[in-house]
Amino acid sequence: MAAKRIVILGGGFGGVYAARALARRLGDDPAVEVALVSKDNYLVFQPMLPEVISGSIGIVDTISPLRRLCPRATLYTRVVERIDLERKRVLLAAGFAGPSLELGYDHLVVALGSVTTFAGSPGLPEHALPFKYLGDALVIRNHVIQGLEEAAVERDPGRRRALLTFVVAGGGFSGVEAVAELNDFVRRAAPSFRTIRPEEIRVVLLHAGPVILPELPESLARFAQRLLRRRGVELRLQTRLHGATAEAALLDDGERIPTRTLVSTVPASPNPLVAALPCRKERGRIVVSPHLELPEFPGVWAVGDCAWIVDARTGQPCPPTAQHAIREARCAADNIVAALRGGPMRAFSFRALGKMGSLGHRSAVAEVLGVRLSGFLAWWAWRTIYLMKLPGLDRKLRVAVDWTLDLLLPPDLVQLRVDRGVGFRREHYEPGEVIFREGDHGDWLYVVTEGEIEIVQEAGRAEERALRRLRPGDCFGEIAVVRHGPRTATARARTAANLVAVDRDAFHALFATLPPLRGFIEDLIARRLGPPAPVPAGAAGAGPGATAPAIPVEVPSA
Amino acid sequence: MAAKRIVILGGGFGGVYAARALARRLGDDPAVEVALVSKDNYLVFQPMLPEVISGSIGIVDTISPLRRLCPRATLYTRVVERIDLERKRVLLAAGFAGPSLELGYDHLVVALGSVTTFAGSPGLPEHALPFKYLGDALVIRNHVIQGLEEAAVERDPGRRRALLTFVVAGGGFSGVEAVAELNDFVRRAAPSFRTIRPEEIRVVLLHAGPVILPELPESLARFAQRLLRRRGVELRLQTRLHGATAEAALLDDGERIPTRTLVSTVPASPNPLVAALPCRKERGRIVVSPHLELPEFPGVWAVGDCAWIVDARTGQPCPPTAQHAIREARCAADNIVAALRGGPMRAFSFRALGKMGSLGHRSAVAEVLGVRLSGFLAWWAWRTIYLMKLPGLDRKLRVAVDWTLDLLLPPDLVQLRVDRGVGFRREHYEPGEVIFREGDHGDWLYVVTEGEIEIVQEAGRAEERALRRLRPGDCFGEIAVVRHGPRTATARARTAANLVAVDRDAFHALFATLPPLRGFIEDLIARRLGPPAPVPAGAAGAGPGATAPAIPVEVPSA
Repeated sequence: MAAKRIVILGGGFGGVYAARALARRLGDDPAVEVALVSKDNYLVFQPMLPEVISGSIGIVDTISPLRRLCPRATLYTRVVERIDLERKRVLLAAGFAGPSLELGYDHLVVALGSVTTFAGSPGLPEHALPFKYLGDALVIRNHVIQGLEEAAVERDPGRRRALLTFVVAGGGFSGVEAVAELNDFVRRAAPSFRTIRPEEIRVVLLHAGPVILPELPESLARFAQRLLRRRGVELRLQTRLHGATAEAALLDDGERIPTRTLVSTVPASPNPLVAALPCRKERGRIVVSPHLELPEFPGVWAVGDCAWIVDARTGQPCPPTAQHAIREARCAADNIVAALRGGPMRAFSFRALGKMGSLGHRSAVAEVLGVRLSGFLAWWAWRTIYLMKLPGLDRKLRVAVDWTLDLLLPPDLVQLRVDRGVGFRREHYEPGEVIFREGDHGDWLYVVTEGEIEIVQEAGRAEERALRRLRPGDCFGEIAVVRHGPRTATARARTAANLVAVDRDAFHALFATLPPLRGFIEDLIARRLGPPAPVPAGAAGAGPGATAPAIPVEVPSA
Repeated sequence: MAAKRIVILGGGFGGVYAARALARRLGDDPAVEVALVSKDNYLVFQPMLPEVISGSIGIVDTISPLRRLCPRATLYTRVVERIDLERKRVLLAAGFAGPSLELGYDHLVVALGSVTTFAGSPGLPEHALPFKYLGDALVIRNHVIQGLEEAAVERDPGRRRALLTFVVAGGGFSGVEAVAELNDFVRRAAPSFRTIRPEEIRVVLLHAGPVILPELPESLARFAQRLLRRRGVELRLQTRLHGATAEAALLDDGERIPTRTLVSTVPASPNPLVAALPCRKERGRIVVSPHLELPEFPGVWAVGDCAWIVDARTGQPCPPTAQHAIREARCAADNIVAALRGGPMRAFSFRALGKMGSLGHRSAVAEVLGVRLSGFLAWWAWRTIYLMKLPGLDRKLRVAVDWTLDLLLPPDLVQLRVDRGVGFRREHYEPGEVIFREGDHGDWLYVVTEGEIEIVQEAGRAEERALRRLRPGDCFGEIAVVRHGPRTATARARTAANLVAVDRDAFHALFATLPPLRGFIEDLIARRLGPPAPVPAGAAGAGPGATAPAIPVEVPSA
């Protein structure tokens, strides 16, 4: 049908504004098809994400449907599997109906942004909460609420302290905005929990440099520091996060902050699809010409965080911000139309309008067109400017209503858990940490992937008895999972250790139906329980269901 | 501290209103502790759930935080593991910090409701979407949006037809309200999808009886039928759902409706915790005295859907509705206070005030205090009454705002996907259905749990070549998962078959780290590819990554 196809990869600011600019420049021309590929069907308005943590903006009000933003484009809500620059095709993963899809292109706009990764830091992939996407903000919110819920009924002082300690790592814009909203939220919500006293709450911001918000002039950054401190945030400057376990944040200097909530705004890493492209890159970003085209692949363009763009006027590389991505997208769109229809191309240049950071509760810092603002005025500017920039009239209205209601109503406490089929998860432990304790109720089976675990029994003994040591490839915890009863021993990390944990449902689905695995588990249980299959020690509360295996794995009666 | 403890199990209408009534009657009395145990920290206002499907009410606005509703109670946001009536204790599952928790009680109120289960219907547990909880409404909404997104870019007419067919099974209140909202939503949303024509959309309601809404007088039910038909809903009366696959709803008479969206409002089943109680039951519900106490266990009370309550005046069993649960809860609270402080108990009796069913888009049917209403007036009554009944002033305000904005703004299209760690899922296939096709991109490994699968190759052949047959315990699909490449053959069900599917990430976590499983997969691949390890046939699009295994399972080179 269409003579030419332009494919845009990525549903962030770069991709969406490229599609919008192309629509304006191409009009109704049926000879050119514009296809936009995005894994989500909405654009996230990043500046408002921190307010999702505190609940002052409704979850879906920070996002706009791509179909409304880009009505001219054909929208593919799919994951990109592969980009083939030689054959000029992209492969899209299967949706829920049918096979994967190949799309050929005449022009390709790569706007795939960056991804977050915790790789290389022990325990962070397993236990730190990233903060970049909409889903992350929701997860953090739910996690914080669960922390408060648990603390309200926790009797152990150490565990209670960890539950009421909230740590955010990274003092850039997103870390500061996140810690400000998180602090506001827990302190406003706490009075609803009768047993929690305000002074028990600890909110900590870790920052590697000497002053937070290095992107801003120091006077504004110091204003922000004073304000956060006054509101009860503990600033730990020149402090780096080294790693994490389920129970603590581990600092570079060896200090251990017991916490159940660790948020980390990690530096971005290249999207694996971009990393796989056979073109020149600088710090993982695609090097483009001043026209934003790949020198080696004419017809392929890159914009936004995944592109290494040198400003034509200043000669400086462009920072990865939304304001830049939007202007880059428009420039690329102009140049694509020039390439299709003939005409001169233009080189990219843009001077940022300003920088703003919200500090929660009617305060902010901002530098707009060279003017420095702080406090209420900056907050008012922040809200006004971002509300204007939020795409779509309906979203503007919804956010304005949200903000109004938030002034009137108490903070919302519901913990919206969409039932997840968890199945399995990864965990990290530092030496001496306990994985589970004798007598606990057991729902997870563990496989050691790295490090060493020891199994000990203490019930009714003056000294604990070492039962066995486990190494990578060994599994443990199967007895309680199969019997649906309490743990018969305690498991503890001897060294730093990584585990894969499998829940009862996944166990049921896999271990019980795959014969080699079933045989393996049966042998293991027989060996560990030994003839004549004793009743688990310390089986407090072993009701009628506790000895009959709850899954169809037959424990040999020996 | 407190001399007596009353434990309430369940955060639905029964549990919450019991806690509220106890708070009112007990006042500040420090001698009595009220503990409320609920797996979620909110109460769902069920009547408004269908509007979450269409998005006319915000997701969290239909739910109210328990902590605000029941400020006097100690709230345990935990799953109940076990109820021990003999020892008067309940065991609560571990939260994210620490061990499970035992709570002793003097009085116990069981208000655990019912659960949905599709057990016994082939394919329904795997492929039908239940509609009972808040999470269900969200899942349905996202699924419907994804169906529209997929259809908009689908080229195959059969798959397109299935994507645009939406089937709801069950013509009671919840099925009718769900189909009405779903129909409104897809028809209002469709114009945003340029390639979807309104006449392509098919919305079907299956109902076993001769007339829908059997709870209402026939004249109102017939009004509802006419209205739904006029709005484009296809009513299939005296039709039962027999089963489902990923691609079709299977009817009792052997008909097959190709669809990708099947919603089923199944009859409720007893909560397993209730089923395990050693007390007398009637149709799975706990039999109680006229005072709502268990005759065999004084001090234990049951209210709501899990209780079999005979009305003291009429002698009829009470229906499982919210209005009844609320009155039962108050009666039980009165009687518990009478038991604690002395005084007469009262027997339970209540005459329902009325019944209402929303039909979407400003229409409803209602019978209130004997008066029958239909159309706009009923809709207005519906909204007014439920807004009044919605607990909490803040929720009332939020829902009123939602309804106002919904009149002004176009329907929302964002598909809010909270990243789930899927890991594995179960699937059901009918004879002849294809699991995957040669050349598809492969992300899942399958284990047969029931039935027979055949693997065939057709690439470049006039006739397909049968490769092998698989039976329970066999697995297939591992080659494409390990190589991250296209499927080398087609898999098809020979008989009705049940499978467990494992995604690449779960495969990575489990199969690659557990030695016995790793050995098993390595052997399997070596055997199936055979020496000298041929390159997969028909490997269209086999890029550079296709032959190098993407996971650390070493494929033997022999």
